[in-house]
Amino acid sequence: MDVVFQVVSALNTFGISRRCEPIIGIGGGVLLDIVGFAASLYRRGIPYIRIPTTLIALVDAGIGVKTGINVGKHKNRLGTYYPPLATLLDRAFLRSLDTKHISNGLAEILKMAIVTDATLFWLLEQYGTILISSKFQDESAAPLVLYRAIHAMLAELQPNLWEQDLNRKVDFGHTFSPALEMQAVPELLHGEAVAIDMAISALLAYHRGLIDIQILDRILCLMKKLQLPLAHSLCTAEFLYEALQDTILHRDGSQRVPLPVSLGDVRFFNDITEEELATVVHTLQQLLPS
Amino acid sequence: MDVVFQVVSALNTFGISRRCEPIIGIGGGVLLDIVGFAASLYRRGIPYIRIPTTLIALVDAGIGVKTGINVGKHKNRLGTYYPPLATLLDRAFLRSLDTKHISNGLAEILKMAIVTDATLFWLLEQYGTILISSKFQDESAAPLVLYRAIHAMLAELQPNLWEQDLNRKVDFGHTFSPALEMQAVPELLHGEAVAIDMAISALLAYHRGLIDIQILDRILCLMKKLQLPLAHSLCTAEFLYEALQDTILHRDGSQRVPLPVSLGDVRFFNDITEEELATVVHTLQQLLPS
Repeated sequence: MDVVFQVVSALNTFGISRRCEPIIGIGGGVLLDIVGFAASLYRRGIPYIRIPTTLIALVDAGIGVKTGINVGKHKNRLGTYYPPLATLLDRAFLRSLDTKHISNGLAEILKMAIVTDATLFWLLEQYGTILISSKFQDESAAPLVLYRAIHAMLAELQPNLWEQDLNRKVDFGHTFSPALEMQAVPELLHGEAVAIDMAISALLAYHRGLIDIQILDRILCLMKKLQLPLAHSLCTAEFLYEALQDTILHRDGSQRVPLPVSLGDVRFFNDITEEELATVVHTLQQLLPS
Repeated sequence: MDVVFQVVSALNTFGISRRCEPIIGIGGGVLLDIVGFAASLYRRGIPYIRIPTTLIALVDAGIGVKTGINVGKHKNRLGTYYPPLATLLDRAFLRSLDTKHISNGLAEILKMAIVTDATLFWLLEQYGTILISSKFQDESAAPLVLYRAIHAMLAELQPNLWEQDLNRKVDFGHTFSPALEMQAVPELLHGEAVAIDMAISALLAYHRGLIDIQILDRILCLMKKLQLPLAHSLCTAEFLYEALQDTILHRDGSQRVPLPVSLGDVRFFNDITEEELATVVHTLQQLLPS
């Protein structure tokens, strides 16, 4: 909120008009979230334009209508639904990113692939290495991967802009990760925490017989190929179950955990137990190199 | 914002669910604005219910969809449009108010009378004294006055909920008053600052030949009957012109000053000068007892 007030103070000093002078946010997801939040509140809303410069902002935070800030250890505890006047997407910005931030964005692309788009999953398997090394500057796969990821995301968001339906496919990887991300900040980027959550969720799906070992293996192998983490020492069964309790409040009293049932489809579950999480954590530890 | 964070902290501690546990704000306009603002931001919006307990909240802050907080010397600098689940209006609460707070609310009722409802103006002339002495507990006029004031307000707000049209009749009395109120806080209540603005605006209308001396006299006499202030030592022409510059930013670059053209109607003006304000300030000083 301190940074929001810095923006507010700059707008006061500038003497910005209420409707005819849009502000422009240029940066990553955190910056766009804060600028969007400030714009949505200043005089009950002034127009703004978003220009995402990171991969994760390009495919996730920069599209859609949500803004928000963290409060204490609570991720996005305060926020608004506030559409920008326009969002300008240009992958040329990605040239300046390091590999960690490319992988960070790939986590959200992988999420969309797992929950709605098996073709996108296949594209990541084929071109993941090139996408990372070229920083999405290659013409072979980058345009198509970005197009599919963004359009898959918009197709999920558009009919449910105000989250009236809390069974959201795009919440895959966002069940345990908010608590993990806030606890591990700044070590883990958002997409990295999401990746660890996706590994846990994929294992939950496998243990429930929703996906077979081949699909589980493809998911975990692709995560490694995309240079994403699969586990974190904080993720004990106890920690994950605690994280789930906070997510339940955000999902209005039910778990609504999206688990993959194939590549490109999920179903929602409300009966995840701490014992089940303990099994998954145990399995995950065995899969990892020591 | 500190108080907003107190509400947020209480909601965190309670572990409130996102959709099925509405919070209830009970109090005056400032409290309802702050609780509404917190509710609109918490997890991007949780349901809330408003119960206004002051006259001004009953006819003004408590109806409509706006929430907000002051920032520094800027009134309602941050806010949202966020409808409550319900607003419960009960004039029994007004029994506990002192006369100053009754008059404070009467200022906003008078505003609605001047801009849209000559009958309401007449009712205030006839029953103003009884309304104050009974604290709106009399059956002769209180129910009708509240009904007309509230419905006149809703009729103005409803077609323009998000203030797409910045020529708002209900902004009468709100051109110079935001700066005055913030400068004179806590001496002047909101309705008192609005009253002073209405006296200035009525004099502007008289000097422009929009209303005759009889109507000006009825307006100023009714304000005195309702025990409202007509002037304040801060209100020099220079101060008022400065206040107008900030209001122009809020009205997207134009003055859009509503001035009465009869009892029950206003027109908007964009050409108020500092010289004109000097004349009005001078006239107002002559009208007041020294």
